[in-house]
Parts: sequence; structure tokens; C-alpha cells
Amino acid sequence: MKKGVKTKDKPVILITNDDSLTAPGIKHLIEAVKDLGRVVVVAPDKPQSGMGHAITIGYPLRLHKVHMMDGVETWSCSGTPVDCVKLAVDKVLRKKPDICLSGINHGANHSINVIYSGTMSAAIEASIENIPAIGFSLLNMSLEADFTAAKKYARLIVEKILSKKADKHLCLNVNIPNADESLIKGIKVCRQAYAKYEEDFQERKDPMSKKYYWLTGEFVNFDKGTDTDVWALKNNFVSVVPVQFDLTNYILKKKIEKSYKW
Amino acid sequence: MKKGVKTKDKPVILITNDDSLTAPGIKHLIEAVKDLGRVVVVAPDKPQSGMGHAITIGYPLRLHKVHMMDGVETWSCSGTPVDCVKLAVDKVLRKKPDICLSGINHGANHSINVIYSGTMSAAIEASIENIPAIGFSLLNMSLEADFTAAKKYARLIVEKILSKKADKHLCLNVNIPNADESLIKGIKVCRQAYAKYEEDFQERKDPMSKKYYWLTGEFVNFDKGTDTDVWALKNNFVSVVPVQFDLTNYILKKKIEKSYKW
Repeated sequence: MKKGVKTKDKPVILITNDDSLTAPGIKHLIEAVKDLGRVVVVAPDKPQSGMGHAITIGYPLRLHKVHMMDGVETWSCSGTPVDCVKLAVDKVLRKKPDICLSGINHGANHSINVIYSGTMSAAIEASIENIPAIGFSLLNMSLEADFTAAKKYARLIVEKILSKKADKHLCLNVNIPNADESLIKGIKVCRQAYAKYEEDFQERKDPMSKKYYWLTGEFVNFDKGTDTDVWALKNNFVSVVPVQFDLTNYILKKKIEKSYKW
Repeated sequence: MKKGVKTKDKPVILITNDDSLTAPGIKHLIEAVKDLGRVVVVAPDKPQSGMGHAITIGYPLRLHKVHMMDGVETWSCSGTPVDCVKLAVDKVLRKKPDICLSGINHGANHSINVIYSGTMSAAIEASIENIPAIGFSLLNMSLEADFTAAKKYARLIVEKILSKKADKHLCLNVNIPNADESLIKGIKVCRQAYAKYEEDFQERKDPMSKKYYWLTGEFVNFDKGTDTDVWALKNNFVSVVPVQFDLTNYILKKKIEKSYKW
């Protein structure tokens, strides 16, 4: 984007996340890209991690204009990350943005995490709506995490995607290793690893001696491939996984058409 | 399953849903399959429609044994449909069931609905855990809907899948047309149609004159294929879409590897 280009020619960049407007990650994402276009932020008013592709049914939604950063139109939404994208298009922008960015998430969204992630569900929702979308996650859950490398690569990838007409359903899941910028070897386009959590709920008793359960789990990588996001991140690459919303398992489709009589 | 087979040899059938334990649909599903194995029910204590693949992070979960139907072990869970599956495996069954069934949902889960659906997310979660899984949905949202055809086809499909060793990640999205049993032409294995909602939030004002928004939308089918679930259902077939949790878009992966310098 050259200097002097009129605002109306600048791409409209919708930004959301799942950690809410108060998370440092979304501020870092805005800072990383704000001179690449007109940034409009519509993000949840409270943390929405693990909300997956949830939408709000049965309750109405609220939308409030707030101030977060000078020159950046920002709205706080009472719904899920997916609700934010839907409301942003229909009631804030009243048109489709040129790109939708989500994040930068505090914590990994590689492998199976993509399916639980509010960050990635917001990006997937945009791609369903024909809006090219990118979700960014840094492999560090801390509020004090160093976002230097994440910001650099987020900007680089957004510039790349804005540089030409993108696939209308383009959706990228970008994870950034928790490593010093100098140690990161570059970007790798990957597939989603088959890696998941082995659940082990912690059972506790409340003061009334009634049981309750905390979700905990150990992350296990069952995938030995060197073309996966988990492999790339372990080897200090930024991983980029193109994501789809067609959940049809075409291989299984052929298999079950043959092996059962329908 | 022949009569006289010992309980311990019977397949263990985990049943859940997203409409909660009070919905007629789950009772119909239990009735449809309860003599095919040992049925254990772990389902949400409140409606969880549209929860997608949400999991409960930051709050603990409750699990209560309840009575729903004679001879059927039933647990009420405070979490999402995905939480129900995780808790059922770890704390109720303490092992993997032979199959996980979800539904019968009151309302369609074809096409893009699969991604928002708590019913289908529960089934997908089971398939991630190597448990063959099937989600059932009837194209009628009414509490008084006629489940006769839905029950018949649910049983038929469960029998089919239990009849041989299933793919460990098998996950089927089954939708049943809202039609009299006599009019249903059979079962079609399909792909997910590209059909979605065109959102149009309704803006209203509360008694304090503050705006709020209701999610509404018109369902639009952009997919002219005759191999889709939407086509099958429109033509009075039961649709069966094999579903996957690998969201990698392999076609887009090849495209972006070629068309951008990474």
C-alpha cells in the first residue's frame, strides 16, 4: 500500500479474536497491520476461548462502540467470535471486508485445536462468507508473551495475501513458535497434524461434598509426518495450514459406498 | 444381536445430543436402538443448540445420575455436547464405547449446519477419540414432530455400522426428511452441500432505548449438485454425509504453495 492512497481505496480489514478486546494479542495484531488498510475491530467483550464455532441462538446480542486505539473503529460484542464476524458484516461494515484477521491468540491452535478454537472459528466463518481470512496464534499463553516475531510474520502474511486476488474461501491457520525472532527459520505451508489431547478430568469435591470436574489433558502427537503444523512449529517454522469448511470425508464416502449396502 | 447374548458381550452405545435430556428426540433415539447393546446416556442438562465444537474452559463441570427410562443408565451434564462425550469416556464409562450416537436433533443439520451443530460436534468429538459415531437430525423443529421414520432409519443405520468393524474415525451426519415414512425413498450417501444462511440481524430497542440484535437468516443453496445432502433431502432421501475432523484444505494447500512465495 503506497503512501497517499485515499482511504476509500484502502482494503477494509476486519479484526476479531476470542480472547476479548482486553487481550494484548489483538492490540499487537492491529498494530502489525493498521497501515495496510482501514482496520475495523469487532471482538468479544469477554474471553471466548474454546467456544469453537458456537453461535448465539435464543438470546439477542449487544454491540457497543468503544475506544481502544486512536484511529481504529472498535466495537465490543456480547457474543461468540463467530457472532462477531456475522454482526460485523451485517451491522457494522454493512458490506464484506476485503480480509478478516483473527487473533493473535494467546496459545497454540495447531493440529486438532483448530476445531475447538474460537480464533479459528471466526476466520472459518469469514471464509464461509467469501471473505479471505487468517487466524494467528502464538505458542505462548502468557499475558506478557513477546509478540515481536508474531507481529512480523502476521504482517508479512497479510501483505502477501493482500498483494493479489485471493481465493474467495481462503482461510489460513497460522501458528507462530514461541521463539526469539532470530531463531525462526521462515514459513511452512503444512497440513493439520493428527495430534490431540488425552483427557483426564480432575475430580474434586465442593464445600458441600459434591463432585465436580476440571478438564485437563495431555497433548499427544500421533502423527510422524514432517509436513504437519506440529512438525513445523517444533522445528521453529511459522506454520500455515489452509483450512476448509467442507467437512465431507471424501475417502470415507467412497469406502462406505462400497462396503455397506445402502 | 441375538437374544440370550450376555450383557458384557453387547456393544456399548453412548448416546448424547444438544437439545438436552428433556427433548423428545433423544428418547426416540434410545428407544430405536436400546436392544442393540448396552445404552448409556450422557447429555446436556439444558439446550445447547448452535454450540458447535465448544468446550468448557475456565469452569468445572457437573455430572448427575438421573432417571429417564427404565434400564438405561443416564447422566445429566452441565457442559456442552462435546464436554458430554469427553466426560462420558473418562468418568462414566471409563473406556471407549463401541459407538457414539447423537440426536435425534430437532431440526436440520445438513450442509453448513454441520459446523454450528452441537449434535454433530458431539459425534465429531467421538470420532477424534477413535469411536465410530453417528449424528441424527430430523428436518422438523417441533416438539410434537413425528419421529417414526427417523427412528426406523436411525436403527437401520446403527445396525449396519455395528454389523462389521467400522473405520475408527467413522463419523456420519444423517438427516431425515420431514416426510411420512411411506414417502421416504431410501438412504443416499452424499457430500455436504455448499448452502448457507444469508444473515440479517433484526435490530430492536430495549425498554431503555438501547439497541440489541436477534440473529435471523435466510437459508440459500448455492450448490446445484445432485450428490449433496440438500438435494437428497429435497428428494425425500435420508442423507448420510461422512464427516472428517482434518480441516486441511489440500487443494488450497497446493494452490497457495504455487502462487505465493513463502
